[in-house]
Amino acid sequence: MLISFFSSIFPLTKESVVAAEQVFKQRTFKRKGFLLQEGDVCRFYTFVISGCFKMYVVDQNGVEHNLQFAVENEWIADFQSFYDQKPSKMFIEAVEPATVLQIEHKDLLYLYTHFPIFDRNFRIVIERKYIELQERVLHNISFTADERYLAFQQRYPALIQRLPGTQIASYLGITSEFLSKVKKKMLNKP
Amino acid sequence: MLISFFSSIFPLTKESVVAAEQVFKQRTFKRKGFLLQEGDVCRFYTFVISGCFKMYVVDQNGVEHNLQFAVENEWIADFQSFYDQKPSKMFIEAVEPATVLQIEHKDLLYLYTHFPIFDRNFRIVIERKYIELQERVLHNISFTADERYLAFQQRYPALIQRLPGTQIASYLGITSEFLSKVKKKMLNKP
Repeated sequence: MLISFFSSIFPLTKESVVAAEQVFKQRTFKRKGFLLQEGDVCRFYTFVISGCFKMYVVDQNGVEHNLQFAVENEWIADFQSFYDQKPSKMFIEAVEPATVLQIEHKDLLYLYTHFPIFDRNFRIVIERKYIELQERVLHNISFTADERYLAFQQRYPALIQRLPGTQIASYLGITSEFLSKVKKKMLNKP
Repeated sequence: MLISFFSSIFPLTKESVVAAEQVFKQRTFKRKGFLLQEGDVCRFYTFVISGCFKMYVVDQNGVEHNLQFAVENEWIADFQSFYDQKPSKMFIEAVEPATVLQIEHKDLLYLYTHFPIFDRNFRIVIERKYIELQERVLHNISFTADERYLAFQQRYPALIQRLPGTQIASYLGITSEFLSKVKKKMLNKP
């Protein structure tokens, strides 16, 4: 699945596939299992095979704020913590049972050094993530709650069914009650 | 300056320096000059030699929201528009007279294809930008206005002097009046 993901960006050579197979490790998570907890170093760059994760911070009042979801065929890591190998401010938690492939920081550096094709592939992965994060900032700045919900529906059509409303509300920066109102309003639209 | 920037990430080979010199073009902007306007395609990936740019959206009520500043030794582009070569939703405007080096989309693809070292360098550039953007989202979610101002001071110490308060307020997501209050409060702190 990972190889076909990379092939969709820029096909890997045989040697680079072998190298990747040696360093990526498969792992499973139960629902509510933690991939990363605040204060720990983000040791892995994680590719989601199945399931769903949320990345969030907990503010001084104990409120969770969802920064990102990652579903099948997507990558997740706290890059600041991963690249600097410093403690993270974030949590990454499975919101569904999940299976992933993970690579450690040192192994990724090994791939970069020996197979420049990974520089290209991961450049494109992070460019796409950057564009998505920028969209998120834009929506937060200039969209109404209704528009943000619509954009979320388009971006993650399956997640609307899969996730509890509280998770989506936290991502959109609104309360669950307000999200219910938004949903009702949309259903009643002609 | 660009070569020394790249060298600080990962040194270029002689051949790749020559190739870069052929495709990067120098350009100057007056204050209030536009590098990009809403509805146009972002044609260039821009490296700032001197001066300062702001990237912003204008919402439905005509209000500007600053997404990003770029000063000396920093890169700026609307990546969504640049990589897809589609019309942008953003403006990029010089807030000070500026000198830049610019590369067109097709020339950047040429560099990527012939000199994999640019995959690495631009991977690292965008990773750093991603981390910064994520910090910005985190601050917006979980910081008070005071804390956001402090973080801005640390990130762009020079800009506090260089930019009018309205620009900084727009970046922090607060009104100019509120920014004045925040500044006063900080000055009066022991």
